[in-house]
Amino acid sequence: MVDGEGAHGKLLVRTLLDAPNAVVLPLVDCAWRPTILFWLGHLQLPKPMEITKVALVGMGTVGTGVARLLLDHGDRTGRHAGRVLWLEQVVVQDVDKPRDIDLPQGVLSNDLRRITEDPYIEVVALLIGGLEPARTIMLQLLESGKDVVTANKALLAEHGPELFDRARELGRSIAFEAAVCGGIPIIANISQCFSANQITSIRGILNGTSNFIVSQMEEQDADYHEALRQAQKLGYAEADPTMDVDGSDAAQKLAILAHLAYGSRTHWSEIPRVGIDHLEKADLLYARDLGYRIKLVAVAQLTAGGLEMHVDPTLVKKGRPLAEVRANYNAVSVVGDAVGPIFYHGQGAGQMPTASAVVADMIDMAVGRMEITFRTLELWSQRESRFQVLDHDRVLSRFYLRFTVEDRPSVLAQIAGILGRHEVSIASVLQREPEHEGDVVVPLVIMTHQAPEGATRRAMEEIARLDSVRPGCVRMRVIN
Amino acid sequence: MVDGEGAHGKLLVRTLLDAPNAVVLPLVDCAWRPTILFWLGHLQLPKPMEITKVALVGMGTVGTGVARLLLDHGDRTGRHAGRVLWLEQVVVQDVDKPRDIDLPQGVLSNDLRRITEDPYIEVVALLIGGLEPARTIMLQLLESGKDVVTANKALLAEHGPELFDRARELGRSIAFEAAVCGGIPIIANISQCFSANQITSIRGILNGTSNFIVSQMEEQDADYHEALRQAQKLGYAEADPTMDVDGSDAAQKLAILAHLAYGSRTHWSEIPRVGIDHLEKADLLYARDLGYRIKLVAVAQLTAGGLEMHVDPTLVKKGRPLAEVRANYNAVSVVGDAVGPIFYHGQGAGQMPTASAVVADMIDMAVGRMEITFRTLELWSQRESRFQVLDHDRVLSRFYLRFTVEDRPSVLAQIAGILGRHEVSIASVLQREPEHEGDVVVPLVIMTHQAPEGATRRAMEEIARLDSVRPGCVRMRVIN
Repeated sequence: MVDGEGAHGKLLVRTLLDAPNAVVLPLVDCAWRPTILFWLGHLQLPKPMEITKVALVGMGTVGTGVARLLLDHGDRTGRHAGRVLWLEQVVVQDVDKPRDIDLPQGVLSNDLRRITEDPYIEVVALLIGGLEPARTIMLQLLESGKDVVTANKALLAEHGPELFDRARELGRSIAFEAAVCGGIPIIANISQCFSANQITSIRGILNGTSNFIVSQMEEQDADYHEALRQAQKLGYAEADPTMDVDGSDAAQKLAILAHLAYGSRTHWSEIPRVGIDHLEKADLLYARDLGYRIKLVAVAQLTAGGLEMHVDPTLVKKGRPLAEVRANYNAVSVVGDAVGPIFYHGQGAGQMPTASAVVADMIDMAVGRMEITFRTLELWSQRESRFQVLDHDRVLSRFYLRFTVEDRPSVLAQIAGILGRHEVSIASVLQREPEHEGDVVVPLVIMTHQAPEGATRRAMEEIARLDSVRPGCVRMRVIN
Repeated sequence: MVDGEGAHGKLLVRTLLDAPNAVVLPLVDCAWRPTILFWLGHLQLPKPMEITKVALVGMGTVGTGVARLLLDHGDRTGRHAGRVLWLEQVVVQDVDKPRDIDLPQGVLSNDLRRITEDPYIEVVALLIGGLEPARTIMLQLLESGKDVVTANKALLAEHGPELFDRARELGRSIAFEAAVCGGIPIIANISQCFSANQITSIRGILNGTSNFIVSQMEEQDADYHEALRQAQKLGYAEADPTMDVDGSDAAQKLAILAHLAYGSRTHWSEIPRVGIDHLEKADLLYARDLGYRIKLVAVAQLTAGGLEMHVDPTLVKKGRPLAEVRANYNAVSVVGDAVGPIFYHGQGAGQMPTASAVVADMIDMAVGRMEITFRTLELWSQRESRFQVLDHDRVLSRFYLRFTVEDRPSVLAQIAGILGRHEVSIASVLQREPEHEGDVVVPLVIMTHQAPEGATRRAMEEIARLDSVRPGCVRMRVIN
């Protein structure tokens, strides 16, 4: 029986696949790769199992989830990777902060050198948010010879080229499955499983906070601020939710996916984006009446004119998979020219889904798969982008337009005339009688046929200047 | 400029990423791995690119798709794998058969030795169906030192242990992404992306032919035989569709997934299965009225009592992702204890989706990732199964029951009495008035609460013996 102590003891016992009378024999077979031979007394064959020493930087929600998987379920990595991931160090800013996990003695510290100066630690999961000190720590980890797994999409979206170039120079790897869509393994799927394809379209609901808020607004008849408070109460939104609700978070993820699928080098901040923070309940109701739901959709697709990219609240036809994504779920629809359309749906964030992605990357690092992937993909290298970005004004879409107009006969003719002059063709019009007698303004909803972004924007600007049109025109993309 | 000839010339030019003034310099840097250095004159750095020689056995629908991807889109593998897959040999039974692809001269033959005796060929895709000669050829390929990619699920389901053991003995690898769900990369996802999880549930629509037939029956109001003829006309069903429509094909795929997720060693033929070949239109209509659709669902999930596995026509609540899978699509819902529920939807068969999966495996072989995966997973090894299979009689489900009964008052009481004695609790009853005056029998539909498989089966047998009940009782599983 293993005479382990605390969580590590548990790890060992577990690793023996519950062998009741196993004996542990610690050995070191070379300087860099200590091996523990587990002699499974009750099985016919002795089963030698190597360990890979790993470490964590940061012990927030995701870090705690990763530590739980490593400590409580070491048997899984043994079974799926033929080796044990041994949690050697956890470095945090404040060691005295109360945590809801028992770490083995001696594992926790606030000294990064306990990782960088330990040559036996091979893989480190960097699980702190923000750009600094995350960037500096990642460089220190790479320079001390560690492979790094991260869930920090902002860091990659901002400093990807610098960090990946440095990793390549040093012969190290970076993995980041957890950075996009949490539990949905979209990074591995796009970069490995569809290697034989040219991806032609990616459309995704990449921000769970926004999707939760929009779903609440639609299903609970809440307004934006009520729904946001609910999201914060349930832990689906940060205290400062700006990056989530203004489309920036989705744009950062889209920039990463577009880099994988198209070699795009577009910085996330250059991706045209609109958030859900100005979404009005009225539009959710009109959309519903028209047979659509509004979702924050991130799009990166190839067109004849180039690569089209944007993040927008979008009307999606009911019954289409993206329209039916509820609560804080994420979903991605990928089209490859050989494989056709593939749709993914799952938890895009949260402690254990994200930890699942981090540990899968750590296993890929430990067994050597990630090194191959990292080397062959040459991500964020100096290689040129293969597709030109389509001028956003030339992006073709159907549009939903809503105006608040004076209730008199010539107004629709004026608006239709302006749209016509800009060659924006009307597919359908929804104008109701005034709700209350004496109302002088009424809502006017127009669905267009496919038209260029620029033409509809210019038409809207012209319409907004009409005396009979009140401020607050709404324009949203429509996908079937 | 490359002075290539035919398809291979195209391959080379493409591989240069369309470099206009590139020069090709063929070299051999060691006996086993010929290298071609592509000096990209217009880029700053010379870009050496290795090639991996590959071959195909079989040139049917999928083989032709694979050859197209290799010959016409060599640039993709160059970009995604850092190397070119060079199609060196294609071995078929009949070289004179007309084919809708132009192969480079000298590639096609009917002599397997042109592959087995060529030490430069590293990876072979075995793309013929059936058990023999596929099994013998796979053994010959492994013994001649080739790694083998296959789409032949029957071969794996039947001879997996023998083939995988032999591959391990010889230090070779077998890959089979295309064998289950065609374009959906479910094998890689379960065996790599969810390594940190214990999978707790797999539910899938794994047979596109059956799903097409059932969708046609539901949407076009066709009966089974009309829908089958339509499927055959569109090429979605074989001339002999038995294995597809009787649930065997889905059971073979389920056995493979259950092996990956649970280490199950259950042979596919031991999985309880019912096909769609006796499905009646009436039940589709009743299901619709109750808010369900009928789908052929394959299930492998962990319960307190053990591993539950079966393939059945099943009522799935409308709006749930599995219920909305139409036409010949496949879908899989996987639950991992860390990652939560993940849903996949895509083309489960067809030339290019299947070819996409085959080439992705060939790339994984060529770069060395597959060797690691194969070695660490120890598939179909002598390792024991970790979960006991749950006795099928103890499987708990809700059930849909339909009887044709005489239209008199005591019948429902009798039936309810028998169900009660077997402790099968009724959730709802649907009994309509006779459609035509003078009808002496009426349909009676009962939805049960959760009850054991065995108890409902025994209750049904007892009910079927009642004088007031006509032959042809129907029992189907229900999932919400």
